Amino acid sequence: MKLYNYFRSSTSFRVRIALNLKGLDCEYASVHLARGEQREAAYRALSPDGLVPLLDLQGVPEPGLLSQSMAIIEYLDEVYPQPPLLPPDPLGRSRVRALAQSVACEMHPINNLRVLKYLAQPLGLNEEQRAAWYNHWVVQGLLAYEQRLRELQAERAARALPPARYSYGDAPSLADCCLVPQLINGRRFGLSYDALDIPLTLAVLQACLELDAFRRALPENCPDAPPV
Amino acid sequence: MKLYNYFRSSTSFRVRIALNLKGLDCEYASVHLARGEQREAAYRALSPDGLVPLLDLQGVPEPGLLSQSMAIIEYLDEVYPQPPLLPPDPLGRSRVRALAQSVACEMHPINNLRVLKYLAQPLGLNEEQRAAWYNHWVVQGLLAYEQRLRELQAERAARALPPARYSYGDAPSLADCCLVPQLINGRRFGLSYDALDIPLTLAVLQACLELDAFRRALPENCPDAPPV
Repeated sequence: MKLYNYFRSSTSFRVRIALNLKGLDCEYASVHLARGEQREAAYRALSPDGLVPLLDLQGVPEPGLLSQSMAIIEYLDEVYPQPPLLPPDPLGRSRVRALAQSVACEMHPINNLRVLKYLAQPLGLNEEQRAAWYNHWVVQGLLAYEQRLRELQAERAARALPPARYSYGDAPSLADCCLVPQLINGRRFGLSYDALDIPLTLAVLQACLELDAFRRALPENCPDAPPV
Repeated sequence: MKLYNYFRSSTSFRVRIALNLKGLDCEYASVHLARGEQREAAYRALSPDGLVPLLDLQGVPEPGLLSQSMAIIEYLDEVYPQPPLLPPDPLGRSRVRALAQSVACEMHPINNLRVLKYLAQPLGLNEEQRAAWYNHWVVQGLLAYEQRLRELQAERAARALPPARYSYGDAPSLADCCLVPQLINGRRFGLSYDALDIPLTLAVLQACLELDAFRRALPENCPDAPPV
């Protein structure tokens, strides 16, 4: 397998975590977004929208070029079921997918590189306005995420279960693959989580970052990251 | 079941289509977004992010309040497998999910009501700038969608299969549940598809709108739509 990705791309980061959790080896192909490599003809031939990540299965177990991070992770989970990244029951699966999508559909798309660039040019917004934009959507999204975690903890408490260690239950899931990159990205944009009342969300972040699979996937640990 | 939704909401529209395709009866609960009902305490108690749609299972087959349209549709597909909204093979499933997510993660979030409102206030963009914003992301997204359909048709041709009638194969899928509301929404914003080179995408739209399940889900056919 070969993953076309970029060290700072949150969506690439999601797939790197999933590959690591599954223990899958994968060649790292850098597409340098800041240098515009995603717009070059060679990459556009692979990805019509010029987006990363893109997973080339290279025939293992079948030929295929997969796009969209959540779809890639669900494919990996179906083909390599251990350890599972979704719970076995439909309701649990819908909860995990909803958490993942609350990041992937409500927070990330409004704040990715191409949107922030458009705000700068042609819209001419200054840095302060762009930071306010970023914070507005991410803060709103994280407070909702926290509220969902609170509800899930209450459901567990009602069944006499201890608090979950991760977003959903005691093992990392698709939801954590999406949450952690969003939180790490927010830090880079100077978002201060201390001022937000999101203790459950931050506890999940900490639990995830204790795992080698998450740490190895961090932007700074990627081959295309600039040397420290 | 009870669906909290709004006639003009594209994400609500997706779930209405899926419910119709599955032949499931569902109570329609209107949350009038333009009047701000999603911000009222009664709804916020159900939905921490104040988003529609929300599906209350009401104990059938289990208690549960489900959020995020794609997660809801996958739940319905797992619990009510006929007719399937995802193909049986992992690669096909990843293709359908990727098409759905190319709408749900690349086009819709950047253009939904709350984002367009923020562009107006506090950012102070005029109507022309907001229309240019809308068109920029949707046109880019639809051209990429068309390119993916072209690739899928080429794959089918290589296997001596006739062109697909819908986004993926000969039955409507999760991808069509996402595509059709996006296209209908774009029309409302004055987007002219004739000027775009997206014949395969428009053929899928037409095929879908020949189905009662899609037509009944149209905004104008919802109980909270204003009388014509």
